[in-house]
Amino acid sequence: MSRYAKPLTDVALDDRFWNRFRETVVREGIPYQWRALNDQLEADAEPSRCMRNFRIAAGKEQGEFGGFVFQDSDVYKWLEGVAFSLRWHPDPRLEAIADGAIEEVAAAQQPDGYLDTYYIINGLDRRWTNLKDHHELYVAGHMIEAAVAYYQVTGKRRLLDVALRFVDHIDSVIGPEEGKLRGYPGHPVIEMALMRLYAVTGDERHLRLAKYFVDERGQSPLFFEVEGERNGNGFYWKNSPLRYRYYQAQQPVRAQRNAEGHAVRAMYLYSGMADVARETDDAELARACRDLWESATQRRMYITGAVGSSEHGEAFTFDYDLPNDTVYGETCASIGLVFFAKRMLLLEPKGEYADVMERALYNGVISGMQLDGKRFFYVNPLEVVPEACEQDAYKRHVRPERQKWFGCACCPPNLIRMLTSLEEYVATETGDAVYVNLYAGGEIRADGLVLKVETNYPWEGDVKLTVAGDAPCRKRVALRIPGWCREWTLAVNGEAAEATVRDGYAVLDREWRPGDGIELALAMPARWVRANPKVREDAGKVALQRGPIVYCLEEADNGGALHSVRANTAAEAEIRWEPETLGGVVTLTTDGLREKDGSWDGALYDFRDAPEAEPVKLRWIPYYAWANRGVGEMRVWIRN
Amino acid sequence: MSRYAKPLTDVALDDRFWNRFRETVVREGIPYQWRALNDQLEADAEPSRCMRNFRIAAGKEQGEFGGFVFQDSDVYKWLEGVAFSLRWHPDPRLEAIADGAIEEVAAAQQPDGYLDTYYIINGLDRRWTNLKDHHELYVAGHMIEAAVAYYQVTGKRRLLDVALRFVDHIDSVIGPEEGKLRGYPGHPVIEMALMRLYAVTGDERHLRLAKYFVDERGQSPLFFEVEGERNGNGFYWKNSPLRYRYYQAQQPVRAQRNAEGHAVRAMYLYSGMADVARETDDAELARACRDLWESATQRRMYITGAVGSSEHGEAFTFDYDLPNDTVYGETCASIGLVFFAKRMLLLEPKGEYADVMERALYNGVISGMQLDGKRFFYVNPLEVVPEACEQDAYKRHVRPERQKWFGCACCPPNLIRMLTSLEEYVATETGDAVYVNLYAGGEIRADGLVLKVETNYPWEGDVKLTVAGDAPCRKRVALRIPGWCREWTLAVNGEAAEATVRDGYAVLDREWRPGDGIELALAMPARWVRANPKVREDAGKVALQRGPIVYCLEEADNGGALHSVRANTAAEAEIRWEPETLGGVVTLTTDGLREKDGSWDGALYDFRDAPEAEPVKLRWIPYYAWANRGVGEMRVWIRN
Repeated sequence: MSRYAKPLTDVALDDRFWNRFRETVVREGIPYQWRALNDQLEADAEPSRCMRNFRIAAGKEQGEFGGFVFQDSDVYKWLEGVAFSLRWHPDPRLEAIADGAIEEVAAAQQPDGYLDTYYIINGLDRRWTNLKDHHELYVAGHMIEAAVAYYQVTGKRRLLDVALRFVDHIDSVIGPEEGKLRGYPGHPVIEMALMRLYAVTGDERHLRLAKYFVDERGQSPLFFEVEGERNGNGFYWKNSPLRYRYYQAQQPVRAQRNAEGHAVRAMYLYSGMADVARETDDAELARACRDLWESATQRRMYITGAVGSSEHGEAFTFDYDLPNDTVYGETCASIGLVFFAKRMLLLEPKGEYADVMERALYNGVISGMQLDGKRFFYVNPLEVVPEACEQDAYKRHVRPERQKWFGCACCPPNLIRMLTSLEEYVATETGDAVYVNLYAGGEIRADGLVLKVETNYPWEGDVKLTVAGDAPCRKRVALRIPGWCREWTLAVNGEAAEATVRDGYAVLDREWRPGDGIELALAMPARWVRANPKVREDAGKVALQRGPIVYCLEEADNGGALHSVRANTAAEAEIRWEPETLGGVVTLTTDGLREKDGSWDGALYDFRDAPEAEPVKLRWIPYYAWANRGVGEMRVWIRN
Repeated sequence: MSRYAKPLTDVALDDRFWNRFRETVVREGIPYQWRALNDQLEADAEPSRCMRNFRIAAGKEQGEFGGFVFQDSDVYKWLEGVAFSLRWHPDPRLEAIADGAIEEVAAAQQPDGYLDTYYIINGLDRRWTNLKDHHELYVAGHMIEAAVAYYQVTGKRRLLDVALRFVDHIDSVIGPEEGKLRGYPGHPVIEMALMRLYAVTGDERHLRLAKYFVDERGQSPLFFEVEGERNGNGFYWKNSPLRYRYYQAQQPVRAQRNAEGHAVRAMYLYSGMADVARETDDAELARACRDLWESATQRRMYITGAVGSSEHGEAFTFDYDLPNDTVYGETCASIGLVFFAKRMLLLEPKGEYADVMERALYNGVISGMQLDGKRFFYVNPLEVVPEACEQDAYKRHVRPERQKWFGCACCPPNLIRMLTSLEEYVATETGDAVYVNLYAGGEIRADGLVLKVETNYPWEGDVKLTVAGDAPCRKRVALRIPGWCREWTLAVNGEAAEATVRDGYAVLDREWRPGDGIELALAMPARWVRANPKVREDAGKVALQRGPIVYCLEEADNGGALHSVRANTAAEAEIRWEPETLGGVVTLTTDGLREKDGSWDGALYDFRDAPEAEPVKLRWIPYYAWANRGVGEMRVWIRN
């Protein structure tokens, strides 16, 4: 029996919290983004050109390539999201549109299987000359992911066949064999995509190619350097502190100990590494994954699950460097962190992975989307002063309100595929155990055991699981005790249950009968959080968290100049469910102090005591819901 | 009688504090920089090419222009500094070298008076086509300043004649008259230079040209735009929040209310404006100067007298935006602030101007130079974490140690001319009054009254002034009571003196006899400073100041992780003169707390109380002396 867990994919979600987001995605996001891909948005949104590129590449239209070199990936991410949505929200009309989009894609495929509209339009003679920056393998990766999802949900092979032909082509061009390019992608994703493909095809070539991409990365002589010299490619990061760290290619991945470079690339690469490590039972690679996980999450992650401290390279910087106002924290990077966390959970079922997954999902991932599903953040700051976003060139990437569509539209479709596939993150299983990693209403259908889950998570900590089905079944049920939870009780059929607690899970081992009820009660007070004292930017500050939800102060509730506000951490927070606020949220109200500046004259500096402070009530809203009520200041960490 | 003050230039300095800096400049700075101008430095310093450019322009050597478009200005600033030094430190050998340099300069002058080696070498057909960015008028301004100083000190007209011919040429090419370019400099300095020239020549054309440059700036249609379209010039700041504010050309100067754009340019422009306002008795222009002064010093200045909050454009950002770690705070900008302050003092003798002048001089100006005079800071941060300077692309302009020489070497020669001309900042006079603005040992020789000054300022607050000369003289003596001083006493001939206090000066009005002694005792405790509560970056923090000296903590004395250190503002500071430390400084020792991080496990975030803190002694050194003992952390503002 494998010592690894496997994904438990037969899950149905019907959750109060997530339903709203997922319905928004189906109702607004998917149609909106389809219009975006077809340049049918309002004139003030940036055009995508994505579908047009496919038609030009297929010879159906005349014109030039539009958008970024990786523009094709947008439709693949959209298709993947559509596929996931069809699993729980059948929609024949949408499926027909997606089938049509797949035909457009297929029509552009070259006789040899190649499919990247950038090079098809601009000249195939230059293809595969710039793996470092030209994203052909990235685009292929997203195509594969879409193809696998669409096939798994609809049973239709059209896109899968396109992807398989493209993979055959790639396999014929790139690899360690004599005569092939000994390259790998500048932007990872194909590694985990190939592992998903392998799970469907069982074709060893797919596994081998994924493993090759992982192992070849960063080997000496460095392919990107060789390629650059051969083809005269530029090296944008030459004079940056990042250099090849930008691409996670500064050294072979097994030697890497710190999460470095472009955060999305890093997360995707590490996810692929974990997939390969598990599938090939590679302890050394698994260890590298653990080291990178610890670096990313224990030294370089924001409290919201955001990663990427700097706009420069959208990248990691160094340990404990977590500025709240110049942060990048790309939505895609938090999504990537969820991918990575899920794969670490499969490598070893430890609650710490699910804790981070939950942290990212409920905070830094969904903060990327406006509550109406129509606008998106690329950057997810923890501290915003709107004037600074305008006047300070190094904060201009931080926007105080979500944008309609991006020229580089990676985040919106990534959010769609994340939210539509949440089922895949809820539970994992081993031969004799079901691990419940996230608490959300629905049904978890493991081999021999069906658990019906009822909860009002994350607003309440009570989770009720009822055994459905008709046969008795012996199975360990492992319920995650979230890292944020300090007090909890567990009952089975109304009686306090003995549970072994191991690696963050309370494990019930018994024979289950239909109708058995498990009641997990997680105490969910509002708690003040402090950052590790090594985090310079959070020294002397506190944040507020309740359950998995990180809170923030907004100018809309608390006035501006939030740097003048201090927390009174001694007083109790008032917890209030407000169904009419921000789509329904629990708000928190705490005592605080606001320093008055009225008594200062014009002087900038003076010999004075601390400014007088007056007691105020501070009203906190969930971080993910910020910037839904106009432009204003926002802060997660405030002075204590 | 003019209501304005005039410079009191007959001052001899012999001051314990300044002598050391000035001797370093004469002994190290001037010879070192001459070698730099002639590319004779060690191989690891950036070559200047400055003098070589003149020889190439004169046809004496073959070669290409080297350095920046404004490279000529370096020798002019050096010559100006040499001139000033010769006034108090005669040195025939140095004067001969300077005479030789002037001959090199003169030899490059064109028959029509033009003199900018960039265009002489690269093609005169393109001259005057890019006033916005190509610095010809800036170079001319520095030439004029050097020429005036050299003439005033040595009586030699050679460089003055060269400058006058260049000014004639400029006057024939640029101006409001039909057929001339209706332009003005992208980088101001010629405005104040022409005013100094006018003071020597009395030639109304020089005044008129200065006034024209001031008044034409920012008029519509914008010259820089017209010029750019005509000549195809680029506009680097097009997509920046700065745009034409970078050049202080966003609107006519009389309408400007905020200190904006590139901070050095701003300071130089405002200085020229104040000169013109005073000379032409222009109340409207003087009011604009006052508004700009208030903006710069009451809303946009660091406690060290640094200005320019952002590396982007080396520029001001917005009110109260004063980040300590990403600051620019160019040495030249603080020097420019001293220029501006001096001119405001002449417009109206108010102590607040001298307060800022003193703040900049004793802190943000001299911090630019290593104590041995051999290395220089361009950027003067208030908070440094060396690792961030390497790993965070947006802090890479902040260096944790001074550099040998800069490709753009504006700051080192600017420091030289500032330190060699300190005499000009000590005092001002009106018909019946002498204003002592800075306290430094030496002699102030006003019309009819000579004051001998003895003091150990800034380390002690006692200042003794003795009336020298032989005739009795009725004159008001106005002694500045520094803004930092809360308690002081004044005695004349040993008896407490009645003094009127007005606008920051204690005024003694009596008939002075030879031998009369004035004793001013300024109480000089160490005081905790707070910033205006609107300054986000300093909220909850304190700085430490004694007299005009701002202090800082260095890792060398206090260990790293200075963000974990808190001040105990209740305890008294221990004040200690340490002759062997950093060339002789008063250090301060205060009680403080250091938060321990030992008790944290690996977690980044946790529900915890504030970290335990242990009492520590904090050892503070003068800010200007930081980074003279190797690389380490430094902080001016610490938590309270």
